Amino acid sequence: METLPTRDDVTAAVDALRDVAVETPLVRVRSLEERIGAASVYVKLETMQRTGSFKFRGAYWRCLHLSAEERKRGVVAYSSGNFAQGLAAAAQLLQVPCTIVMPHDAPEVKRLKTESSGAVVVQTDHGDRPREEVANEEARHIATREGRVLLHPFDDPALVTGHASLAIEVLEELNRWGAPAPDDLLCCVGRGGLFAGISLGLRVSGMHTSCIPCEPLGYDSFRQSLRAGKPVRVGGSGATLCDALQATRPGDAPFAIAGGATLGEPATVDDAAVRDAMRFAHDALKVVLEPSGAVALAALRNSRDRFEGRHVVVVLTGGNIEIAAFGRLAA
Amino acid sequence: METLPTRDDVTAAVDALRDVAVETPLVRVRSLEERIGAASVYVKLETMQRTGSFKFRGAYWRCLHLSAEERKRGVVAYSSGNFAQGLAAAAQLLQVPCTIVMPHDAPEVKRLKTESSGAVVVQTDHGDRPREEVANEEARHIATREGRVLLHPFDDPALVTGHASLAIEVLEELNRWGAPAPDDLLCCVGRGGLFAGISLGLRVSGMHTSCIPCEPLGYDSFRQSLRAGKPVRVGGSGATLCDALQATRPGDAPFAIAGGATLGEPATVDDAAVRDAMRFAHDALKVVLEPSGAVALAALRNSRDRFEGRHVVVVLTGGNIEIAAFGRLAA
Repeated sequence: METLPTRDDVTAAVDALRDVAVETPLVRVRSLEERIGAASVYVKLETMQRTGSFKFRGAYWRCLHLSAEERKRGVVAYSSGNFAQGLAAAAQLLQVPCTIVMPHDAPEVKRLKTESSGAVVVQTDHGDRPREEVANEEARHIATREGRVLLHPFDDPALVTGHASLAIEVLEELNRWGAPAPDDLLCCVGRGGLFAGISLGLRVSGMHTSCIPCEPLGYDSFRQSLRAGKPVRVGGSGATLCDALQATRPGDAPFAIAGGATLGEPATVDDAAVRDAMRFAHDALKVVLEPSGAVALAALRNSRDRFEGRHVVVVLTGGNIEIAAFGRLAA
Repeated sequence: METLPTRDDVTAAVDALRDVAVETPLVRVRSLEERIGAASVYVKLETMQRTGSFKFRGAYWRCLHLSAEERKRGVVAYSSGNFAQGLAAAAQLLQVPCTIVMPHDAPEVKRLKTESSGAVVVQTDHGDRPREEVANEEARHIATREGRVLLHPFDDPALVTGHASLAIEVLEELNRWGAPAPDDLLCCVGRGGLFAGISLGLRVSGMHTSCIPCEPLGYDSFRQSLRAGKPVRVGGSGATLCDALQATRPGDAPFAIAGGATLGEPATVDDAAVRDAMRFAHDALKVVLEPSGAVALAALRNSRDRFEGRHVVVVLTGGNIEIAAFGRLAA
């Protein structure tokens, strides 16, 4: 990537998304303030975004960059998760043909939801090979064979710029209320696309908010990459509930863009903390959270003195979970 | 009741609640607009209010009306449901001793939550008698014996005035966004306290929004009372999932206050529609709803041409449901 996205890029993305994305609620949660001694705690319910996660933002902004001719040819991408649904919905709104490659063992509900947005789903059988590698390969084949534009599921500055709109919404809403800008903002990190977007949005708004990357135990590749000063690969050992955050290396574009912002000490949380946060979301917020979407909330609830007297925003990034699984994990 | 609450009463309640109640989110839901052909559909997530339902608003405003001497003596009320939790939380904030009388067969979780807000819970064994009658009797005994102020769980104009703050929030939020005022507002009705509050708030704001009472099948006492022009009792036959709306007669104060507003044709929904609405809340909104809290949403989703081209607000009134039960009902 040659240049970082600019303030003008972010403003353009915000304007484009204003009429199609949901301006998701920002809600003050006094019980969290009392628990951690913060001056204020707001949660951003990105769970209510189209298709149930933040992915729609970046996908829509990326698709807007297609030329008229590319729009006719259509797009293809591999994803077994929230990006598939977000991209399918964005493509449908823009009337762009869309093919999604998914491993055959991805949950059926994800396939059905992606198809219900009008995308064609192609399933791959990866045998003994890494499933992401096989799906990626198939997506390339389709791009070549059918002349479609191959979209990368995370390593693309346009995706990051689209996600930046979330941070702008937070700042606008706080400003409308006359509330102080956040001192800290907690957001989960997988490949880092949303985190980079948020830090970009805050930076181009002149904020010095400390952006805190929150990762599941065993997959703290962003933390380790920050230490190393460049993207590094981690073992990714161990099971985690957070299927959407099982990243063993940050994306290059997200890592580069996030590096331009004010970053706070990264947080890592285990499955027990994630389940506890999901339970809190059910009991106190009445919000459905998938495990990955609960990681930043878990990090906040785990903290002891870190946020005392500070103004804090926590992003709840996604709620795509079967109701039975939600009940089991949050019980 | 001698006089209806005035615009000044509502303004005072709104001001008093501003720093203690949650300004719950109002969220535009485009998929509902598309489904019913409405110009706009907003849902008001009162599920995120303190204690998980709207009841805190009225309870807090009612408790503010206690004299200094009454505050010392404390309050007592009977309730097996959301009013118990709302009142306990309001009393705790105002440092008023609070006793709640509950039937012994009320769900344990409701007792625990009420106690966790510092209230004393007294359980009654009603044997073959109606449980509400026995609990009411016990509350009166406690009031006499301990010199506490007996609060009525619904038939009290101050409760209705507190609930009116919800309507004012909706109007303020739409106004901030430059969005049109609602043509229609759907809200569930049990005894009618919230519904009356909302219609009061709209009326004193000079709105001619059509307020649509939504009731569960078999418990349409508000509809029948409107027809009769006075509160009447219905049989209340049949099972319903909507435990908080099993009212066989509207409250006198709510019915009188609601009568001053513009009312729309009442809607009645069955359990299947309620479950469908709960499922939609999980899948599309990522919001936890109890059956009673889903009744207005169910009525909206059931409608065919009624809301075409109209600006509609739907109140999601409560989310106090065990996660296992939510999973079972919304599956």
